[in-house]
Amino acid sequence: MKVVECMQERTVFVVSDRTGITAEMLSHSLLTQFPNIRFHTVAMPYVDSPEKARAAVERINGASALTTSKPLVFTTLLNDEIHDVIAESNGFCFDFFDAFVGPLERVLGESSSHTSGRAHGVGDVERYSSRISAVDFAQACDDGLRTEEYERADIILTGVSRSGKTPTCLYMALQFGIFAGNYPMTDSDLDRSMLPKTLANVREKLFGLTIDPARLMQIRRERRPNSPYSDIKECRREVASVENIFKAESIPFMDVTAMSIEEIATTILDKKDVHRDLF
Amino acid sequence: MKVVECMQERTVFVVSDRTGITAEMLSHSLLTQFPNIRFHTVAMPYVDSPEKARAAVERINGASALTTSKPLVFTTLLNDEIHDVIAESNGFCFDFFDAFVGPLERVLGESSSHTSGRAHGVGDVERYSSRISAVDFAQACDDGLRTEEYERADIILTGVSRSGKTPTCLYMALQFGIFAGNYPMTDSDLDRSMLPKTLANVREKLFGLTIDPARLMQIRRERRPNSPYSDIKECRREVASVENIFKAESIPFMDVTAMSIEEIATTILDKKDVHRDLF
Repeated sequence: MKVVECMQERTVFVVSDRTGITAEMLSHSLLTQFPNIRFHTVAMPYVDSPEKARAAVERINGASALTTSKPLVFTTLLNDEIHDVIAESNGFCFDFFDAFVGPLERVLGESSSHTSGRAHGVGDVERYSSRISAVDFAQACDDGLRTEEYERADIILTGVSRSGKTPTCLYMALQFGIFAGNYPMTDSDLDRSMLPKTLANVREKLFGLTIDPARLMQIRRERRPNSPYSDIKECRREVASVENIFKAESIPFMDVTAMSIEEIATTILDKKDVHRDLF
Repeated sequence: MKVVECMQERTVFVVSDRTGITAEMLSHSLLTQFPNIRFHTVAMPYVDSPEKARAAVERINGASALTTSKPLVFTTLLNDEIHDVIAESNGFCFDFFDAFVGPLERVLGESSSHTSGRAHGVGDVERYSSRISAVDFAQACDDGLRTEEYERADIILTGVSRSGKTPTCLYMALQFGIFAGNYPMTDSDLDRSMLPKTLANVREKLFGLTIDPARLMQIRRERRPNSPYSDIKECRREVASVENIFKAESIPFMDVTAMSIEEIATTILDKKDVHRDLF
């Protein structure tokens, strides 16, 4: 007889009067601590009026009526009226601001402005432009293009094709306003067993990515199945060559096989001691 | 006599055993509620051993010794030993997990795994690949390229050049795994005063961006100063034409002049009722 174990399931509502990104991120972090429960998350951003709050409560109560386990409700709500409407729902409510605003007010000796969170607002125009410039830069200097712009770069990533350079650069630009270019090591670069001159000139900005050849093969196959490019031998050869160059030239590098884009980006900024400034 | 008001200043340390992104985001959200204080934030990610924690404490105490106002320390630390080392620092410590893990354990009737947060880990490979595919898609379908791929899109943004389409698409891809393409309305599209056929075929996926012509001029001038492209009359003409098309064709659109990329992205997903799934 097979014993079927039923996994506990929970619906999770993330209610915010703005984008809800902060609330979603923290609730996600907390819920990863309960790996035996299957969570279904519903984002409810822009709940910025009592009417919308009442509509949200109807949805929460509707979900609650369908199951024996009450939904979880995570909120970042500064408006007391909206907050109180949501708190009356049939879910278990956790407000992320509630827990910290009071203690912060006491420590700082100031009242909070208690206005709708503008954490993801446009902020000052200059800062905003610098972020857009960083995205432009990552796109302009993607895939070995415009190497003449490298003097403006904070970081230049290098590695074989499909080792995660492009998404990492775009993430660094969007999340932290970092100017990041990327240069793929091509066959001719790999054959010479040394850094191409373009990179040798910006040595101090370089960071290398390497990856398990079997995973690389898998990623490349999704792009171009049955091509020499996605052959395991080719993947092994390229990875071995690029690692040899990194070692011979003392370029810092790391294996990103089991890393997310966030982990790759934040680890590199940490290792290269580049100041990060969250948008 | 001019009265010079001294703004309160505070150093803020964000200490995490992983990427620190969640902690940085929540602390940033909370601190925007205290607009009269100038905060200097120092991110300290990957504090994953008692030795690193002691080094962090030295830095916190060093900052504390330089000023009369104690630093704030925001943490997301699951390891008790590391947590306790940081808690002994001379800063005011706020742990985001501490405040919620206990109440969640009670509500869920389960112990938390109490392992280092993997909120930004690679997760399952399939989910991860879909995110990379979304980034590839945003790049492939940027700026009106590969319109033949639009059937795979979740969203297609349109508007005049430099109205924020590209960063929004990249953000949607990276943060939510959304397949988003973008199509800039060119002069010939604007002159015809109707949707180009490419877009008319995917009408239900469209969302329009518009922007204040003066702001558009400013953005375009940073790119190409003294060109007809960045002339205020040209900006006014293009914005008026594109808004006319949106109205005539009943395409939902919004003015993004005062919006951040996060706000543009989350508002569109909300209005188009596209499910978002945070990475």
